[in-house]
Amino acid sequence: MSFEIIKEKANQAVEILKEKNIDMWITFVRETGALKDPALDITVGNSSTWQSAFIINIDGDKTAIVGDMEKENFVKADVYRNVIGYLKSIREPLVEYITKKNPKTIAINYSKNSVLADGLTYGMYQILLDHLAGTEYVKRLVSAEEVISALRGRKSKAELAIMKEAADETLKIFDMATKFIKPGVTELDIANYVKGIVVKKGYELAWEETHCPAVFTGPDPAGPHSGPTDRKVDHGHMINMDFGIKLKGYCSDIQRTWYVLNKNEDKAPETVQKGFEIIRDAIQMVADALKPGVKGVEMDDIARNYITENGYEEYPHGLGHQLGRSVHDGGAGLFPRWEKYGDTPFMPLEEGQIFTIEPRLPVKGYGVSTIEEEVYLTKNGCEFITKPQKELILLR
Amino acid sequence: MSFEIIKEKANQAVEILKEKNIDMWITFVRETGALKDPALDITVGNSSTWQSAFIINIDGDKTAIVGDMEKENFVKADVYRNVIGYLKSIREPLVEYITKKNPKTIAINYSKNSVLADGLTYGMYQILLDHLAGTEYVKRLVSAEEVISALRGRKSKAELAIMKEAADETLKIFDMATKFIKPGVTELDIANYVKGIVVKKGYELAWEETHCPAVFTGPDPAGPHSGPTDRKVDHGHMINMDFGIKLKGYCSDIQRTWYVLNKNEDKAPETVQKGFEIIRDAIQMVADALKPGVKGVEMDDIARNYITENGYEEYPHGLGHQLGRSVHDGGAGLFPRWEKYGDTPFMPLEEGQIFTIEPRLPVKGYGVSTIEEEVYLTKNGCEFITKPQKELILLR
Repeated sequence: MSFEIIKEKANQAVEILKEKNIDMWITFVRETGALKDPALDITVGNSSTWQSAFIINIDGDKTAIVGDMEKENFVKADVYRNVIGYLKSIREPLVEYITKKNPKTIAINYSKNSVLADGLTYGMYQILLDHLAGTEYVKRLVSAEEVISALRGRKSKAELAIMKEAADETLKIFDMATKFIKPGVTELDIANYVKGIVVKKGYELAWEETHCPAVFTGPDPAGPHSGPTDRKVDHGHMINMDFGIKLKGYCSDIQRTWYVLNKNEDKAPETVQKGFEIIRDAIQMVADALKPGVKGVEMDDIARNYITENGYEEYPHGLGHQLGRSVHDGGAGLFPRWEKYGDTPFMPLEEGQIFTIEPRLPVKGYGVSTIEEEVYLTKNGCEFITKPQKELILLR
Repeated sequence: MSFEIIKEKANQAVEILKEKNIDMWITFVRETGALKDPALDITVGNSSTWQSAFIINIDGDKTAIVGDMEKENFVKADVYRNVIGYLKSIREPLVEYITKKNPKTIAINYSKNSVLADGLTYGMYQILLDHLAGTEYVKRLVSAEEVISALRGRKSKAELAIMKEAADETLKIFDMATKFIKPGVTELDIANYVKGIVVKKGYELAWEETHCPAVFTGPDPAGPHSGPTDRKVDHGHMINMDFGIKLKGYCSDIQRTWYVLNKNEDKAPETVQKGFEIIRDAIQMVADALKPGVKGVEMDDIARNYITENGYEEYPHGLGHQLGRSVHDGGAGLFPRWEKYGDTPFMPLEEGQIFTIEPRLPVKGYGVSTIEEEVYLTKNGCEFITKPQKELILLR
């Protein structure tokens, strides 16, 4: 594992602490092989077995307190200038360190809004309170949500370059799938073909292999996030694939739609073509409006309204999500105002964030029209990371 | 993924709820691709994106409440008889279900003692309280620790068979390593050779690849849990490897010690041989005492005292841990009375649990003596899962 990007992110975290006026941020974990706080991938990079505290301060000091036996791994990684080892209990070195720094606010990893800022378990929270019992620091704990969301969202140049590479490599695999898909092959055949390429190229899948890729052919397919079935591609089918890889720790997440011509057709039926174009154009309308400062819910409204105004049912999910080390990354999302999304639809978007845009609609009798693109928020707008699908891909 | 063992475990959970007199057990999760409650591997087996509740009841009813889009995956898996889908918020179906069942106690996944019973994040705990606000169920929440620890600890016959297979396959790889290790190869060479076999055979590593395998050669090596280095094997070195695989979802975890003879030696020096035998005999003494009802701390005492009485320093870790789907599994462990282990050293051991036994001691000028065996608790004692290392392996 390269620690260069992790060092860069740890330094960025210091700047974010200053911006948010938070004195100290503690990622408090144990047995990360069994349960891994998602913050570890961003600012630590090593696993730990015993209770460990990874502490970043507004003054730039970075300190790790870890089990003696693992101290060397953290010294080597050199993300934390100070590495303190302990044998029997973390309490004493932890309380001593915090007391020395005397922070007015201590951010810890819990959040109702974002799973990625919610790596502290309830048991570990209780243990932390036990360690701090009798000190005034118990009252100074705050959520690290805004720190983590900013840190994950605002991609550095190095991160953006990897994300572009991951998207490019993924689109190459889509091109290979275009040549593979034909009447008679099943959804599972297509998924297995794609997985074979991923293994051969040494990439990882961006999400669980049960539905990465997810492949859907023909009318009334299973819902999104369902696994591929033994349903066969046939003439007159619309086919979709939802697929992403993880490359150098960063994810892609892309969808494309194909149509298999009937023997007497040389273009797709009007209803199929229209379904495709509505999705394509909805994405462009959102891309034209996306810029720092807008809210995700406004972007979701644009696509959702355009689709329903054209007589289709609304898609049963959000318009898009952030993308990074995790396939559903960051805090803010392009989400509707549904309770399960918490506050995330209402957070102003920021420069450097990467979002998917992935509306969908069903085309009765043929299948589903869905495209998923990736975009990057610039200072005044956004840029496509994926070369957008502008035409329905026709197969024979 | 096969759901047969998961169904078996879900049924076993009902029996444990009866035994512990707990009416309902809820595993409450979201975005399991980003953060996975360890209980999911045991009683669910599928991922979920949106807030989901997996509920097992004392009356045998098993109900999953999940996002509409993923409902089909859970219906197919058939671990939960009732699968309820929702679109915008889980609150209504969740509260309605709980109210209908009216449980006197509801176990949820938090625990200070066991990371494996502590999959509920603090943010998700707050969300659960929000959902249940205004009901009396808020006051009926209890820790699922004893349910999860019993469930993970008590292996079924099918689980034991897989664990034996994983151990056997791992020992074969140790035998291959015996042929590979010779003066001049580095710790990293050995680790890479072993990893190559794992990839070729299609297994996974049991823990993070940074130190799986961990390899140590010669005097004063890095501490346990350190990664392999470019230090070279030489004559007069003791060599250890700590290595395990994950096979069909279950882990092995084994250590062996080798000694490289000097050119004029035909057996190991007395001090090396003695260091080996103390460890070997400590393991046997523990195995002779291990049985349901004893406490882990008593087992740790046996080995720790035997080693220190023989003039060696005590090992800087616990004597052994449970093993299963996770490499550090279950609740109870063979641990000393150190704060970081919480209550786990004092929990009576149970039939069906699988433990490692892994004491260590340094042999000055030569390296480290360490063996790790796996044992299975029977009704009246224990049986070795690994064929124990009885002789120091001599290399030329």
